[in-house]
Amino acid sequence: MTRLALKIEYDGANFCGNQYQVGVRTVQQELEQALAVLAKQPVRVIFSGRTDSGVHAKGQVAHCEWPVLPLPDLSRMCWSLNGILPLDLSVTSLQWVPADFHARFSAISRKYAYRILNRPQRSPVLKTTHYLVPTLLNIKAMQTAALQLLGEHDFSAFKSSHADHHGAVCKVAQAEILNLGEGMLELWIEANRFVYNMVRVIAGTVIEIGLSKRAADDLLRVIATKDRNQAGPTAPAWGLCLESVKYPSSYGLFSSGIEDRNFQEIDKREAT
Amino acid sequence: MTRLALKIEYDGANFCGNQYQVGVRTVQQELEQALAVLAKQPVRVIFSGRTDSGVHAKGQVAHCEWPVLPLPDLSRMCWSLNGILPLDLSVTSLQWVPADFHARFSAISRKYAYRILNRPQRSPVLKTTHYLVPTLLNIKAMQTAALQLLGEHDFSAFKSSHADHHGAVCKVAQAEILNLGEGMLELWIEANRFVYNMVRVIAGTVIEIGLSKRAADDLLRVIATKDRNQAGPTAPAWGLCLESVKYPSSYGLFSSGIEDRNFQEIDKREAT
Repeated sequence: MTRLALKIEYDGANFCGNQYQVGVRTVQQELEQALAVLAKQPVRVIFSGRTDSGVHAKGQVAHCEWPVLPLPDLSRMCWSLNGILPLDLSVTSLQWVPADFHARFSAISRKYAYRILNRPQRSPVLKTTHYLVPTLLNIKAMQTAALQLLGEHDFSAFKSSHADHHGAVCKVAQAEILNLGEGMLELWIEANRFVYNMVRVIAGTVIEIGLSKRAADDLLRVIATKDRNQAGPTAPAWGLCLESVKYPSSYGLFSSGIEDRNFQEIDKREAT
Repeated sequence: MTRLALKIEYDGANFCGNQYQVGVRTVQQELEQALAVLAKQPVRVIFSGRTDSGVHAKGQVAHCEWPVLPLPDLSRMCWSLNGILPLDLSVTSLQWVPADFHARFSAISRKYAYRILNRPQRSPVLKTTHYLVPTLLNIKAMQTAALQLLGEHDFSAFKSSHADHHGAVCKVAQAEILNLGEGMLELWIEANRFVYNMVRVIAGTVIEIGLSKRAADDLLRVIATKDRNQAGPTAPAWGLCLESVKYPSSYGLFSSGIEDRNFQEIDKREAT
């Protein structure tokens, strides 16, 4: 096999998104540059999908054709890459995949978390990962609202007006608000696909429900209108994180932590 | 009352600790400068204790004499301060306290968390709050070891050789390792007092136990020797966070979230 799947983590603050753009810093440029150092020739990566400027990822997935002799030890290759990559980007796992694997088209679903800090005063420790809402939120109402997202809907109302016209029907498999205490809330959404800005517009709308600017059952009405003007504002990028991308189990991809397998290898090496 | 208690949060990365030092950036200098803007005269703050260069705090406590007419609304004063303070420092709560309250001498106990990321590859998202240990740790052994810290011990063996000579007997009320999944571990320690570098040396020693460089029951032996050379290395500053400081309940200080009380006030104001 010469096709390589990469699991990628980044702090989005100083990237203009993940996709290649001329003249600005992107995840793709940094990643391809590091891969080219090891391959000694250009390597092109393809992502599971785009993340906007400022959006983080803990489980972005990409693939590339590895143009030279496969290296025997992928954990070592991971370390090499992470020694070259800047500190706000890392490859957390590597795996050989068959030639029919495609990071974008093979993906079954994506999972995002939107993180909110609901307390009166800003947090220096959470400032890069949580959106501060300094007014008391009605969490119960938000939790009730989130459930209405489940199932198949046309999410045109939650699509950026700058988005392309590929339709907006998405099947939502998970939609819930976790209350982690001390004002930390997380909106988790898993769907087969997302339209542009969808999670951030949903977050902005659910926050308005939490602020009692909307009724808890307003989401279904907004969905039915298919009108972006009916939804709430787009919540800021830094609260959003692409947590994971799911593929058919036949690929056995990054399943239940390739990290652990690497760890066991290290362990064995030390024991012998 | 003219004495004000402050609950403070900071990202320690760009501070040379919290205590005033000439020629370097400290929490105290930034905080006193912001308070002086509001008071229009110098204000001196006293902390519950020192935190080292690079160490974070979510629940540091300080007090000061407020030299001018008390402001009627402490949440508003909090917002004003946080509008002046740099983004890596904030006052999360303010409360008037009687004149016998002293941030350092009234404190009953301090609670620290030391955060470890145990996975092979570095994390861009957790890089400023977690210490990466890229070799598989035996968490069970670490958890067993932590329990040995409970109770009253002379922690001379876990004291920086640069520390003063005020004795090293500390009473540990909580000592446990939490496994939060995905490689995230937290060592929580609460004690009436800590000696210089104590939590970081304990973390370094417990990590050696996790790496099987020491037996799980080695901590009691190390404590008994009172010899710093018997303990492990000092774990890096950025994994450490002062989580909270406890005072006699008679002060009713920052108990079960003054944040919530502020929130309710805001709520009422909006409702009327």
